[in-house]
Amino acid sequence: MRNVYLDHTATTPVHPKVLEAMLPYFSVKFGNPSNLHDVGREAKNAVEEARAKTGTLIGARADEIFFTASGAESNNFAIKGLAQANSQKGKHIIVSQVEHFSVLHPVKTLEKSGFTVTYLPTDKQGLVSPDDVANAITKETVLVSIMHANNEIGTIEPIEEIGRITRGKGVLLHTDAVATTGWIPVDVRTLGVDALSFSGHQFYGPKGAAGLFVRKGVRIKPLIEGGIQEDGRRAGTENVPAIVGLGKAAEMAAAEVANRMSYLAPLRDRLQKGLSEKIDHLVINGHPTKRLPNNLNISLWYVEGESMLLFLNMQGISVSSGSACTSRSLKSSHVLTCIGTDAAVANGTLLMSLGMENTTEDIDYVIETLPPIVQRLREMSPLYEDMLKKEKGK
Amino acid sequence: MRNVYLDHTATTPVHPKVLEAMLPYFSVKFGNPSNLHDVGREAKNAVEEARAKTGTLIGARADEIFFTASGAESNNFAIKGLAQANSQKGKHIIVSQVEHFSVLHPVKTLEKSGFTVTYLPTDKQGLVSPDDVANAITKETVLVSIMHANNEIGTIEPIEEIGRITRGKGVLLHTDAVATTGWIPVDVRTLGVDALSFSGHQFYGPKGAAGLFVRKGVRIKPLIEGGIQEDGRRAGTENVPAIVGLGKAAEMAAAEVANRMSYLAPLRDRLQKGLSEKIDHLVINGHPTKRLPNNLNISLWYVEGESMLLFLNMQGISVSSGSACTSRSLKSSHVLTCIGTDAAVANGTLLMSLGMENTTEDIDYVIETLPPIVQRLREMSPLYEDMLKKEKGK
Repeated sequence: MRNVYLDHTATTPVHPKVLEAMLPYFSVKFGNPSNLHDVGREAKNAVEEARAKTGTLIGARADEIFFTASGAESNNFAIKGLAQANSQKGKHIIVSQVEHFSVLHPVKTLEKSGFTVTYLPTDKQGLVSPDDVANAITKETVLVSIMHANNEIGTIEPIEEIGRITRGKGVLLHTDAVATTGWIPVDVRTLGVDALSFSGHQFYGPKGAAGLFVRKGVRIKPLIEGGIQEDGRRAGTENVPAIVGLGKAAEMAAAEVANRMSYLAPLRDRLQKGLSEKIDHLVINGHPTKRLPNNLNISLWYVEGESMLLFLNMQGISVSSGSACTSRSLKSSHVLTCIGTDAAVANGTLLMSLGMENTTEDIDYVIETLPPIVQRLREMSPLYEDMLKKEKGK
Repeated sequence: MRNVYLDHTATTPVHPKVLEAMLPYFSVKFGNPSNLHDVGREAKNAVEEARAKTGTLIGARADEIFFTASGAESNNFAIKGLAQANSQKGKHIIVSQVEHFSVLHPVKTLEKSGFTVTYLPTDKQGLVSPDDVANAITKETVLVSIMHANNEIGTIEPIEEIGRITRGKGVLLHTDAVATTGWIPVDVRTLGVDALSFSGHQFYGPKGAAGLFVRKGVRIKPLIEGGIQEDGRRAGTENVPAIVGLGKAAEMAAAEVANRMSYLAPLRDRLQKGLSEKIDHLVINGHPTKRLPNNLNISLWYVEGESMLLFLNMQGISVSSGSACTSRSLKSSHVLTCIGTDAAVANGTLLMSLGMENTTEDIDYVIETLPPIVQRLREMSPLYEDMLKKEKGK
């Protein structure tokens, strides 16, 4: 049976070249970068080389990169750290309703401690309006956080435009670029952001290494306190092998991002076209063009996402029924709710995210496999039966 | 040249069996445990197996283990999370003055937000007095945090006795067991603690995997919010390979801890005796018997720790001049200050922490190598010259 992994937004395999770069740092060059002897120094140098490579990928200086253990940690660090370190300016925060929970939950916590938060809606394609951002800013506003692209529906937000607004008004701008880094160009100066989150395991690096860009001169309070690591901003012994892996993944992404886009978008379009032609009552979520090149998020009427997922799994195809972070929580997606998807069809959602290992044959296999699964499942649905009767009656 | 690594408290090499266990989880079994398909399920199962093994090492149930990325994160999570989740009871915290900064800095932060903190002294061997703990507890006290053993001087604290006191008074007890886990027996029920921090890379596991035991039923607020991982207590994709490695390291430690103690203590004693015989004006820090079996912390008059460290490094010997976390900060140790070490001699401190790779030959090499280095350095010291003149004058 063919195995087709279409869940690259949840996690990617570590690229063999990345693993190769990491391997010496487990048992041979195993030092703690805080130590002054050669064993420590060797580890320190490896971390700093990775920091430079990571900075290069996103157009940042090495000393603007702070390593963390996950995209979620980066987002928590950014939201709590920027808001708390700059609260003398004011206690108002602006986010979109489609942010990842690792942005939304920290702002909820800040709300309980005296901050006020504006939650901006999006349009039906998931786009935040820069005008809405401009109108929401008050003289109390300290921080705006809008994601670079949505991890579920793939919509790429107008961060450059938003950045011009926040800079003009002297407000800090953070963007969660976990879904974009390594897949489309990400440049902190072009975007005009003050802070940007990214995560290695979402672009062929290892789990356990992620980071936050913080523009030089911007104050941020540590989330994890009590150590001199990361220039005093994040305590804890550096995860040296994982950071080395992140650096290698960043180097590869910088060299290959244009190729990735030109390989993946046509493959995704082939999948979208194939499924749309063979399955009726199918909705494509997200923006038709302002979308991640490897993202396809579809909602099907009269069928449950989780049932499709499990039947596809039996055929060797791995997809998500929502975001990776909510797939075990069984809640419906707050992103689909925000873009106005009918709750009935939102339940029938599949998120397919492509990667460089996927071939045309893989895609054609999915196009062959999914429609009969949908048909079988719909035939068991009383709602589908009703719909067919109604259509006949017309 | 012989290479002798004597800095196991800072970090250990990943054991080859641990690395072997981890390897499949980078590029083959690379799934995100949150995903429902087989690729995700395989990763989820690996994480849960590691959780059970880790629990077994410290006498805890699997569902009482919460994985984090570092000992520092575990300590931050414990201090902030327990204090904030239980503050309805009161806002008083008790810690010792010799805690790691990843405990001391979070309590400082809580102090700024309305908590009061009692900082208990120790005796000259670094022991906290259980009576002092009992006397410091008020009806406002919500949390006591005393480390299991000190990471610099190796003194093992009377946690069992302290646990009986806190339980009797209905106060939560956290212990930082980063320095002890894997080196001496650690059992959360015997110790009577409500929370306990540990870290994999300090006992032959990988960097990037650590954890916090939280007793079933004890409330704790997440430090990293916004995901369902770790039972909703810590957001972020699990670092699957590192967690698998931690599980393997825990399994090995459970089987070998008695051997480790009986191998290391005599080796450490040989080092202590050898150096004491050959170097005058030498102080051994910590408790003579209630001490980690692999710890030797010495302070030498009329010589700087960092100079000795660098000369030893040139001879292939890796040691620390203080704790790993402060070795680049150039501050003198708060632990040595607390136990009343004269500032002049505290500057001449070396922390040597042994591991299972160290042999008798390694130890004898250090005993041969250090004394002439000390002699050379002292000969350049005007203070040493003065002392010699005074001694002659007697």
